[in-house]
Amino acid sequence: MTTKRADGRADDELRQVRITRNWLDHAAGSVLVEFGGTKVLCAASASEGVPRWRKGSGLGWVTAEYAMLPAATHTRSDRESVKGRIGGRTHEISRLVGRSLRAVVDYKALGENTIQLDCDVLQADGGTRTAAITGAWVALADAVDHLRAAGSLKGEPLTGSVAAISVGIIDGVARLDLPYEEDVRAETDMNVVMTGTGSFVEVQGTAEGAPFDRAELDALLGLAEKGCADLTRLQTESRT
Amino acid sequence: MTTKRADGRADDELRQVRITRNWLDHAAGSVLVEFGGTKVLCAASASEGVPRWRKGSGLGWVTAEYAMLPAATHTRSDRESVKGRIGGRTHEISRLVGRSLRAVVDYKALGENTIQLDCDVLQADGGTRTAAITGAWVALADAVDHLRAAGSLKGEPLTGSVAAISVGIIDGVARLDLPYEEDVRAETDMNVVMTGTGSFVEVQGTAEGAPFDRAELDALLGLAEKGCADLTRLQTESRT
Amino acid sequence: MTTKRADGRADDELRQVRITRNWLDHAAGSVLVEFGGTKVLCAASASEGVPRWRKGSGLGWVTAEYAMLPAATHTRSDRESVKGRIGGRTHEISRLVGRSLRAVVDYKALGENTIQLDCDVLQADGGTRTAAITGAWVALADAVDHLRAAGSLKGEPLTGSVAAISVGIIDGVARLDLPYEEDVRAETDMNVVMTGTGSFVEVQGTAEGAPFDRAELDALLGLAEKGCADLTRLQTESRT
Amino acid sequence: MTTKRADGRADDELRQVRITRNWLDHAAGSVLVEFGGTKVLCAASASEGVPRWRKGSGLGWVTAEYAMLPAATHTRSDRESVKGRIGGRTHEISRLVGRSLRAVVDYKALGENTIQLDCDVLQADGGTRTAAITGAWVALADAVDHLRAAGSLKGEPLTGSVAAISVGIIDGVARLDLPYEEDVRAETDMNVVMTGTGSFVEVQGTAEGAPFDRAELDALLGLAEKGCADLTRLQTESRT
Amino acid sequence: MTTKRADGRADDELRQVRITRNWLDHAAGSVLVEFGGTKVLCAASASEGVPRWRKGSGLGWVTAEYAMLPAATHTRSDRESVKGRIGGRTHEISRLVGRSLRAVVDYKALGENTIQLDCDVLQADGGTRTAAITGAWVALADAVDHLRAAGSLKGEPLTGSVAAISVGIIDGVARLDLPYEEDVRAETDMNVVMTGTGSFVEVQGTAEGAPFDRAELDALLGLAEKGCADLTRLQTESRT
Amino acid sequence: MTTKRADGRADDELRQVRITRNWLDHAAGSVLVEFGGTKVLCAASASEGVPRWRKGSGLGWVTAEYAMLPAATHTRSDRESVKGRIGGRTHEISRLVGRSLRAVVDYKALGENTIQLDCDVLQADGGTRTAAITGAWVALADAVDHLRAAGSLKGEPLTGSVAAISVGIIDGVARLDLPYEEDVRAETDMNVVMTGTGSFVEVQGTAEGAPFDRAELDALLGLAEKGCADLTRLQTESRT
Repeated sequence: MTTKRADGRADDELRQVRITRNWLDHAAGSVLVEFGGTKVLCAASASEGVPRWRKGSGLGWVTAEYAMLPAATHTRSDRESVKGRIGGRTHEISRLVGRSLRAVVDYKALGENTIQLDCDVLQADGGTRTAAITGAWVALADAVDHLRAAGSLKGEPLTGSVAAISVGIIDGVARLDLPYEEDVRAETDMNVVMTGTGSFVEVQGTAEGAPFDRAELDALLGLAEKGCADLTRLQTESRT
Repeated sequence: MTTKRADGRADDELRQVRITRNWLDHAAGSVLVEFGGTKVLCAASASEGVPRWRKGSGLGWVTAEYAMLPAATHTRSDRESVKGRIGGRTHEISRLVGRSLRAVVDYKALGENTIQLDCDVLQADGGTRTAAITGAWVALADAVDHLRAAGSLKGEPLTGSVAAISVGIIDGVARLDLPYEEDVRAETDMNVVMTGTGSFVEVQGTAEGAPFDRAELDALLGLAEKGCADLTRLQTESRT
Repeated sequence: MTTKRADGRADDELRQVRITRNWLDHAAGSVLVEFGGTKVLCAASASEGVPRWRKGSGLGWVTAEYAMLPAATHTRSDRESVKGRIGGRTHEISRLVGRSLRAVVDYKALGENTIQLDCDVLQADGGTRTAAITGAWVALADAVDHLRAAGSLKGEPLTGSVAAISVGIIDGVARLDLPYEEDVRAETDMNVVMTGTGSFVEVQGTAEGAPFDRAELDALLGLAEKGCADLTRLQTESRT
Repeated sequence: MTTKRADGRADDELRQVRITRNWLDHAAGSVLVEFGGTKVLCAASASEGVPRWRKGSGLGWVTAEYAMLPAATHTRSDRESVKGRIGGRTHEISRLVGRSLRAVVDYKALGENTIQLDCDVLQADGGTRTAAITGAWVALADAVDHLRAAGSLKGEPLTGSVAAISVGIIDGVARLDLPYEEDVRAETDMNVVMTGTGSFVEVQGTAEGAPFDRAELDALLGLAEKGCADLTRLQTESRT
Repeated sequence: MTTKRADGRADDELRQVRITRNWLDHAAGSVLVEFGGTKVLCAASASEGVPRWRKGSGLGWVTAEYAMLPAATHTRSDRESVKGRIGGRTHEISRLVGRSLRAVVDYKALGENTIQLDCDVLQADGGTRTAAITGAWVALADAVDHLRAAGSLKGEPLTGSVAAISVGIIDGVARLDLPYEEDVRAETDMNVVMTGTGSFVEVQGTAEGAPFDRAELDALLGLAEKGCADLTRLQTESRT
Repeated sequence: MTTKRADGRADDELRQVRITRNWLDHAAGSVLVEFGGTKVLCAASASEGVPRWRKGSGLGWVTAEYAMLPAATHTRSDRESVKGRIGGRTHEISRLVGRSLRAVVDYKALGENTIQLDCDVLQADGGTRTAAITGAWVALADAVDHLRAAGSLKGEPLTGSVAAISVGIIDGVARLDLPYEEDVRAETDMNVVMTGTGSFVEVQGTAEGAPFDRAELDALLGLAEKGCADLTRLQTESRT
């Protein structure tokens, strides 16, 4: 027996996804990405040069920071700058976003340039890390265009696209793109990052409640493949 | 001899001001305020109870935090959470926003409730602190309505409104509401916070270049009175 | 064409695993676990009471911290206490170890007791997080015995066992339990945490080089199932 | 109706001001400045070179740090070094002192030298920031003499003097140079920094109680002009 | 062959010691202590209550913090509050001062009161920690008188006095009370804390150059006994 | 009347001391040193180059860090990396270990190489700092052999050996090498660091209970001389 989703979606259906480019005036690329009520502002800042440990290598660098505004969550969270330290969750997601984007970057073609992605969650309703990755890729692609227009590139630094989606098992049913109210109830929760050509970049599954078996894992991976393919299409449309 | 302003405004004219209420779903009050290219997201979170040092007093509390997203500025700034400490400028403006709002709060009528204002600059083009104060007051007023609707108030906690504007002397001319390009060239820079009824809450003037005389100070105060009166009108309109 | 593994192991073979219990005198449970050259000291400290947010719930708590001694790595690493902040990787693994153990804990049976696991890597040669989880479970089980002997338990707090192993694709071949020299060359690297009954608790796969396809993912999961089953047996033997 | 001041002063009269030069042996300039019970030790340390961002510019630098000893206040305050972070008030005043001094510095004449002012409050009885600025200028002038005697200057780096005073409205009366007991009761509190020639460098007025009108603001500015002129005279006398 | 001391003192002679009591208005006891050019401001703040871990024990607490102003040293030192962490030397001396004072405190007679000593070095010319201990004891005794006058004591909390002095071997000669220029040249450096009745509280000897033998150690201890006896007399005189 | 020691030792007898060399694979020297139940892992990492302030001097550098694992103590201690700051005791002991080793180092012969000692207490049962120094010297000597074998040395950087022992007065009796249970009951506690030739490097005595007289001090020094001589012999044996 399956309960219907509160927002009426099919189990394999994305929430309404909106990708608004050029939301900021100064950044080389900027995107406000929305997955339903989740809003993430993704800004890509391009600068000449690379971190010290990479100087003289001829290779570029791409890195990312993820953070949440205090009022983004249902109950206000304390500001990490005020606490004086970054929490484990923030660290973890910043690293995930950076790794995901780097999977499709050719550092040689980028040359000794750095692109810094900032993903700031303005409102959180589940799936903030997957929205961040999906939006950040569009901002990154815009920043690459910006560098290309400025004549700063040696070749095409993007070898492809990446998108990410959450999947989970709620009341025994595998579902795509969980909002907050499903996320807190999920027995198993998985975030999957894939390239536009359907390969896996990251798979992170966690048993929040009961451990999951191989069949459940397979079902979740199937849903994620479908969701990432949909997101890839939306990313492409937003850039044309 | 006066040069014209780059954006064609009269010397005593505000930039286009936009006040978009209810920008967030969870906060008791939330406003995206824009002064030209400056965009500040002001969120007011209401919670029962007060800080420990105030417990049992029957009095409420209002406090504020100001911060800037890394990509808000022309050149990306480092994240204060990553640096592990809040800079002096951030501290100073957070304190200013809090003091300005508290000038029109009746703590007794608020009862033992706390309203926390978060003013996050999404894009900076001069006047971020004055936009923050002006927008935060609207968010605060909405949060007060929210508490009133929930039956949590003993009376009317707002004794009036506050708004704030920057004024400065550029090339010898006193001007209202400085964008970034005027701000960096200003000899004298002043931020003025006033109540809706035309009294002063804060006056902060700084000689960035040459010290200023009493006549210049008087001219700046006059401009600020005009600007704050205009903002008060816009605040009122946004709430009706 | 496959190259042989440098240490002569079969692709689906664990390194020599040693589990030495009661390595410390004071902790309720303590294990020195070795996966080849990787040595992790896992200590379980039991204390009455729970963190403040859990008081009065009747439920216990299990948490974990992972860290590395400076000289554990090939090149000495700086001490996080001296740097004054914990790095992202440390945060991430501490959270992973805690979540993995909590997957087999019945908080009600534990009662309002806390068990704190400390996993300190004395020497690192790949797979430190998986060794930590595998050893920490044994230390946890010993601490539970300690609490039971002291009459502090209401029931059986362990619903099962957990073990963890790394798998990866090196030169196109899926391999089990990667030492450092394989880890740095792996195209894809996955850590898998499973219960003693063969269910998944965590699956974390990352494309370090090229993204991976579904078939590769399936091969890695198969290897991990084999490795975790072997570790479960070793855990059981160590406790008898 | 006006109440008399507790210490018998006229409303426009300074407390007893003492400026003791050469209080320390090592610093290039050092002053113990006292405004009544407020005692601030101001030390100016001169060093060759400038911060990295200014190297090669041919310009000097002047900066300041303000702090309070724990036992300076009526009730002991915690040490900021022990808390591991500087409070907002300290940050704010350090920045104010630095800006005030820089208003009368010709960086070109200073050449690539740095003068660092340390203003440490040994005892606080109101007006610590204004005493700090007033004393720091004397220490700065002594440090400049020291550099000149050492042949390190290209010209005269001081374009004038600065002094600062607090003014406020207590029980409806505008008063000069508030001690602690008046400061806590003030409805409006203003700190004014002026040059020796009577121009304004900083004006910082705050409504602590009721907002203030333009007439009150004008009265306060008048008092401050009188007080700063008196302090300028005392600074001059101390240096002859 | 012995060289004469630069300041003309005999090898077993103290520098000029000045103990100025009641240097501050607010603290329960305060002393400016000078050992030659070394100036330390010692303040004793008394408060009702004890730290949490001591509540309900009926016992008091005495603790100390030592710090140095930036301009106290020959070359300016960075502020520990700005660096955000306390250095090892500061930690070490704070602990030494606290332990030394606690050696003559009867916590039962003090009752549940806390006395916090702050020893801030205003100028450093060798022997800052020994001056701090010697002055802090006088401030502590004054604070005890203050508590007694307020009727807050159950008995006599001071079981005696403590004083401290540095001794060292310079050019093969044992000398008392080293100024900075001797301190940096000392082969062996020892700080000794003694009670007024001639017992040892702390002995801390360090071979800065060559290790020292038992005869040298004995000579240094003898000198220290002489110096502490002299300081005890000066402490007593200052309090009468 | 003297009580016998709980572990049956004579008053001037060391606990069982074990020195296990080459405990780690990567470090240039590594020793697990045990003084009874106290276990300290001492690792010496050698690297080319010296800290910035020493560059170009032709001189080497030796430094040390001491720390304790959370579960090393009877009751678990919080991790300093998690607290974000190093405690005073840790700072103090790290400095002591470094100073002690440097007393027997010829920097010129070491050349511009750095040896970093890490002393991590795996289990604490009194005397952790003296075990750390004793073991660290062996690790240092092994690291020096390692550098010599690599042809990186100009001469013999070790001018001798150092060892350290604790002594104390318990129930009026002077005893050598205190375990935790004696340490907490000691009236006086002293740590002594000596060279292999019987000279003193550090003497740190503290009256934990009653102050001590000269005769007691002399008795403790005598015991320490005996203990350090025994340790020197064990160090030598371990290296042959």
